[in-house]
Amino acid sequence: MHHARRQHDLQSMLSPHRLDGLLITHLPNVRYLSGFTGSSATLLITENKTVFFTDGRYATQARSEVQGSRVVVGRKAPIATAAEWLVKNCSKLHKARVRIGVEGDHLTIATRTRLQNTLSSEFLLPEAPALIERARMIKDAAEIELIRRAVQLAASLFDRILETVRPGATEAEVAAELEYAARKAGADEMSFPTIIASGERSSLPHGRASQAHIPSRGFVVCDFGVILAGYCSDTTRTVHVGQPTAEARKLYDAVREAQQAAIEAVKPGIKVADVDRAARKRLQKQGLSKYFTHSTGHGVGLEIHEPPRMAAGQAELLRPGMVITIEPGVYIPGKWGVRIEDTILVTERGCEVLTPTSKELITV
Amino acid sequence: MHHARRQHDLQSMLSPHRLDGLLITHLPNVRYLSGFTGSSATLLITENKTVFFTDGRYATQARSEVQGSRVVVGRKAPIATAAEWLVKNCSKLHKARVRIGVEGDHLTIATRTRLQNTLSSEFLLPEAPALIERARMIKDAAEIELIRRAVQLAASLFDRILETVRPGATEAEVAAELEYAARKAGADEMSFPTIIASGERSSLPHGRASQAHIPSRGFVVCDFGVILAGYCSDTTRTVHVGQPTAEARKLYDAVREAQQAAIEAVKPGIKVADVDRAARKRLQKQGLSKYFTHSTGHGVGLEIHEPPRMAAGQAELLRPGMVITIEPGVYIPGKWGVRIEDTILVTERGCEVLTPTSKELITV
Repeated sequence: MHHARRQHDLQSMLSPHRLDGLLITHLPNVRYLSGFTGSSATLLITENKTVFFTDGRYATQARSEVQGSRVVVGRKAPIATAAEWLVKNCSKLHKARVRIGVEGDHLTIATRTRLQNTLSSEFLLPEAPALIERARMIKDAAEIELIRRAVQLAASLFDRILETVRPGATEAEVAAELEYAARKAGADEMSFPTIIASGERSSLPHGRASQAHIPSRGFVVCDFGVILAGYCSDTTRTVHVGQPTAEARKLYDAVREAQQAAIEAVKPGIKVADVDRAARKRLQKQGLSKYFTHSTGHGVGLEIHEPPRMAAGQAELLRPGMVITIEPGVYIPGKWGVRIEDTILVTERGCEVLTPTSKELITV
Repeated sequence: MHHARRQHDLQSMLSPHRLDGLLITHLPNVRYLSGFTGSSATLLITENKTVFFTDGRYATQARSEVQGSRVVVGRKAPIATAAEWLVKNCSKLHKARVRIGVEGDHLTIATRTRLQNTLSSEFLLPEAPALIERARMIKDAAEIELIRRAVQLAASLFDRILETVRPGATEAEVAAELEYAARKAGADEMSFPTIIASGERSSLPHGRASQAHIPSRGFVVCDFGVILAGYCSDTTRTVHVGQPTAEARKLYDAVREAQQAAIEAVKPGIKVADVDRAARKRLQKQGLSKYFTHSTGHGVGLEIHEPPRMAAGQAELLRPGMVITIEPGVYIPGKWGVRIEDTILVTERGCEVLTPTSKELITV
């Protein structure tokens, strides 16, 4: 990973945004910039230096992982150590007021208050734009390779689902087998709580695997992902237990066509809202769009949900190197639901579907 | 669970804190007050009503889970739906300025800014004290029972660790077997990423299970927990592969004695800092306290880490019904480490160690 280059790119953006420095507390952003994988860290980036703060639990790990930064290990929370360091090292360095940007989407009100209390009034803490999230939206070749591997690892687990989804098995048992296979195959962990939603529960878009027994007939929505070397995968397939009725097949086909329509809309320069609209329009024709109660997708990378949000009203334009999900779903309350989701790479000319798993309706 | 009573208790605290309402966005707090287990929700509590906000994905689930509140399903993020509801329903109800408290430890700067922009200037959004976290510190009988069951479930998995920790196995394989057994035994999920840190890696206090192979001789720190019906367990045992040297045994005994000293300090009315000091003082005698680089423990409940923090400088007094961990550790960088952790219930007269697992040094 090109941590030094990423830090350098960010440093070049400070002055145009009238910032003397940026205090980074959101862990995926810290990891993106420094390589640190632990759970307690703050990174300070100024125009000409980068300082990494952690606590005693991570002293050894930080020294071995952190790239391109000085490592400071404190006794307090990393943000408090960073504040003390700032007072000692950056006071009155250049000017009357030192402007240290903070991450408004991540820093809590209370933390900013404490930070401002430690720092003297010569420090200002403006809410910085989401510079790092914007950079992270465009994946470099190494990141794309890691996401591709995570998606492929997840795909290799789908057979395990097909073997375990059986009438009478609990959803949790299916999740257990899947997660066990994921670990055995080398996944760091799952990228989110596994969703195995069977029968009526398939109408819950976020129906985490429960102790419910899989019925003898009906849909089972399987939404799962792994983390491999920090990068997430996200895949949903809906299978059918027993022979599907004509109505079930029609519903499945409608979702599949909507998903395909959205994929076909993906190319550089297209508004993300237009991809969402492509899926929704297709479902509208069948009177199903009111049952499509979430957005069409989201970015994937170091986080399972990251920008862009593929939803109505979002003006972001697709660009090569973005990795997104396309996951329309239809949920008829109390009855059933279907969702199909792929992970997609936006390329120079259009897109590449990274998920290799078949989208035929599989009957188990 | 007594959701209605919890809401009522909170309502009675609003007026003394000069609040007309409280906007709750931290999901464990929402769950504690309403019973909702999903991942998208905001709860508004005023003196005489409770309104729960979610988005379309959770409409069905919210209606079946949420207790004691009206459920409002919006098209936007729950916090935005709540803001619109406030404008429509609480504007100029009682007074010139409506004071709606927000959770300073959880709400981000950006969210408060957006919230204030939606609400007219007649709404004030003061940072409320951590009323819900303070209530959550004292567990009721039903909560204690759930934590007890989570701790016992985790204890039943320890044998699986003893069977799988073998020279040459990877740490990830041990974690895989443990997590599989947890799922099979009915755990919702693990309460944090499993730590299996062997050999030199045992000196990393947060050494998540990696692809490293377990060496033929040395410590293996195993820190793991499950979530059962929403409540977390947290246990650490350090085992030894091969016959321990006298030096290894001495280190283990020192940590075990420090842990015991801390447990013996636990009773109502004692400052949490004094429990921390009891462990540290014991290690100091052996010249090991400088290698004890984290706090002695933390509260456990709906979250794996919650108040009180068992650390130096913390003035919180122990009270009956608190559930805390006691987990001193010693980490010699590049060499090895030992941690022993129990989950402890503070009782009327002292404490009860909920973790039934032996603390003898086990050799595998």
